[in-house]
Amino acid sequence: MSGREFFSTRTVAEALAGFRPAHRTPVEDVPLAAALHRVPAAPVSAAAPLPGFARSTVDGFAVRAADTYGASEGLPSYLDLLGTVRMGAEPTVAVRPGGCVAMPTGGVLPAGADAVVMVEYTAETMPGTIEVTRPVAPGGGVVRADEDVAAGGTLVPAGRPLRAPDLGLLAAAGVTAVPVHARPRVTIISTGDEVVPPSTVSPAPGQVRDATASALAGLVADAGGEPVLAGIVDDEPGALKSRLTEVLPESDLVVVSAGSSVGARDETAGAVASVGEIWCHGLAIKPGKPTLLADCGGIPLIGLPGNPLSALVVFGQVGIPLLWRLSGCDAPPPVPSTRARLSRDLASASGRLDIVQVTVHEGVAEPLFGPSALLSVLTRADGYVRIPEPATGLDGGTEVEVVLYR
Amino acid sequence: MSGREFFSTRTVAEALAGFRPAHRTPVEDVPLAAALHRVPAAPVSAAAPLPGFARSTVDGFAVRAADTYGASEGLPSYLDLLGTVRMGAEPTVAVRPGGCVAMPTGGVLPAGADAVVMVEYTAETMPGTIEVTRPVAPGGGVVRADEDVAAGGTLVPAGRPLRAPDLGLLAAAGVTAVPVHARPRVTIISTGDEVVPPSTVSPAPGQVRDATASALAGLVADAGGEPVLAGIVDDEPGALKSRLTEVLPESDLVVVSAGSSVGARDETAGAVASVGEIWCHGLAIKPGKPTLLADCGGIPLIGLPGNPLSALVVFGQVGIPLLWRLSGCDAPPPVPSTRARLSRDLASASGRLDIVQVTVHEGVAEPLFGPSALLSVLTRADGYVRIPEPATGLDGGTEVEVVLYR
Repeated sequence: MSGREFFSTRTVAEALAGFRPAHRTPVEDVPLAAALHRVPAAPVSAAAPLPGFARSTVDGFAVRAADTYGASEGLPSYLDLLGTVRMGAEPTVAVRPGGCVAMPTGGVLPAGADAVVMVEYTAETMPGTIEVTRPVAPGGGVVRADEDVAAGGTLVPAGRPLRAPDLGLLAAAGVTAVPVHARPRVTIISTGDEVVPPSTVSPAPGQVRDATASALAGLVADAGGEPVLAGIVDDEPGALKSRLTEVLPESDLVVVSAGSSVGARDETAGAVASVGEIWCHGLAIKPGKPTLLADCGGIPLIGLPGNPLSALVVFGQVGIPLLWRLSGCDAPPPVPSTRARLSRDLASASGRLDIVQVTVHEGVAEPLFGPSALLSVLTRADGYVRIPEPATGLDGGTEVEVVLYR
Repeated sequence: MSGREFFSTRTVAEALAGFRPAHRTPVEDVPLAAALHRVPAAPVSAAAPLPGFARSTVDGFAVRAADTYGASEGLPSYLDLLGTVRMGAEPTVAVRPGGCVAMPTGGVLPAGADAVVMVEYTAETMPGTIEVTRPVAPGGGVVRADEDVAAGGTLVPAGRPLRAPDLGLLAAAGVTAVPVHARPRVTIISTGDEVVPPSTVSPAPGQVRDATASALAGLVADAGGEPVLAGIVDDEPGALKSRLTEVLPESDLVVVSAGSSVGARDETAGAVASVGEIWCHGLAIKPGKPTLLADCGGIPLIGLPGNPLSALVVFGQVGIPLLWRLSGCDAPPPVPSTRARLSRDLASASGRLDIVQVTVHEGVAEPLFGPSALLSVLTRADGYVRIPEPATGLDGGTEVEVVLYR
């Protein structure tokens, strides 16, 4: 109960800037149907221009724009109808001066034409003669063969998770597999003599089911990682070290949900020190101070506080940015947020990042207090407010940014 | 090329309020590890209180609070150390007046104690005697047996997608499977004689690879649905009707990516009318006007415009809310957004919803223009601005809400 350690405490800002283990996940090819939110390891370029041919964007008539100059309701142009372009087929007829060809939206612009006049501004006054009542400029009603993407142009950049429309553009270019970083395998180890699996029907007095591992697995999946639940390790000396040695070679990130007591924390720090280099022990964050960060030969390890609420807050602030880095992602997706007014004063200590859970109703953010041993504080919250390191608190009525949970 | 149909056009607001096919997906039990973002079909309650026993939230000594009243550095209370609580085990000793028991964080509060004094405010001055230098109130340093959730209390509500901390609370309560609505199976049918599969190495002149289906599959997956790509149907009469008849019994939502030409749209409307009731043909939205909504015996069907950009915009505005409804979700997750100033004037027509793609840099939203035939407009955008139905445009410099893509 004595022997509290005094490792170096760091701020969250220092951890984000300075704790940068070298490891990145390997690159693998995945089919388009499995590529959503995956992170391309290199830009993907177009082998050929898109759409690949000049296409009509309207139903109408392919023309030489010059033949429509000055056309009006009162003084239409009259053009000879030379034929029809069929969808999906090459035109069998060209447009010569004074002529036009009927076009569906999406059809190939025939040779000789430089514009498509919309059907709304035409009439077939006599069989074979099209009256045009409005002029069209060159390029009007047409997309160029390379207007979507030029040959060699970038379809998707490296480092930004793929979004739904990216999948469409890749499909359009005939790219059916994408080189992406593998999902980081995040091994989650729970510790503590009191912790029993969630499937335990009737925990004995003093035992608690493992809540943190399931919640962490959800956070990991949300950030594109692959959670691996490695079970519960007893507080017995040597047990954690031996488990860490086993899992490190198969992990891109290791998360130890440590015990909350000083004894359990010392045990964790000792085991981690034997397999890697401790970068900090103690983060200037509330809740979540008893956090440990270590570099195990390039593989990052996070020792989380034992309280589920603290553990999840710290993982959100420090673990998720690490996960994105491991995935080769330098442009993480935006997170939902809203502006709201604080319902009351919030105290904080200068030099410490405070994460305060809140509900939001009609533009008012109401802080949820309660011991960080309570998970229900987090499940009842709509989101959280950050009180940054330099601040010593926020006054009631202040407009704040609330990061919303999804 | 003639024969343009004049079905009823509706606004997006009317569609969201009025187009409500009755179908919901069935309920299935899924294990906790697969329950992230799934929608509970009923509230899940706690069978027993949580954490289930009064627990210490600090390292220290379990006491009767009254024994510490008035304690100070100058005038400490002295208590007899009666024993130690071990993690995960029932206390073997009770606290009597004038006594205390050593406690780890998370340990079971022994009988007779009503508070835990932090180790920081104690010292073992003599073996067996603990000096307490600060008073603790009843309940201090303790969470009650039902402080997280009372027996019968709600762990997670129905209708809101499960978030990571919900999985933790369910695990804590021993709930290892959750009754949720099945993921909606969304059948995506592409049509058009010019459309060929993305795997086509060298499309013939006039052919385009199917971009929309892959992008739609991404949007469906993002909203918790299960996309089923049902391939490309020729514009041949009867082909679409026959495909619809096949897929409807296996679908919760059917999406037809229709051709863009008037002829292709007529063909789609005819086929849909033979398998369901057309609710509207034409939405007051730009891009995306040629949209069709139909109710096929309770199963919603969306006929999307042929241009990929238009199709994706409409699916985002109308299809995704339908998907959430099918999933039994009445509280869809928040979407990321930011405030930005428009770089220029945007025109719109009153009575029509305009969705304008934008990039956002340093607080300025720059509209991206270009024909809706271009998918790259969407892949280059950071998000979009809505110009709602009543507005006739937005002035440059106006502060707008940009919905951000993720």
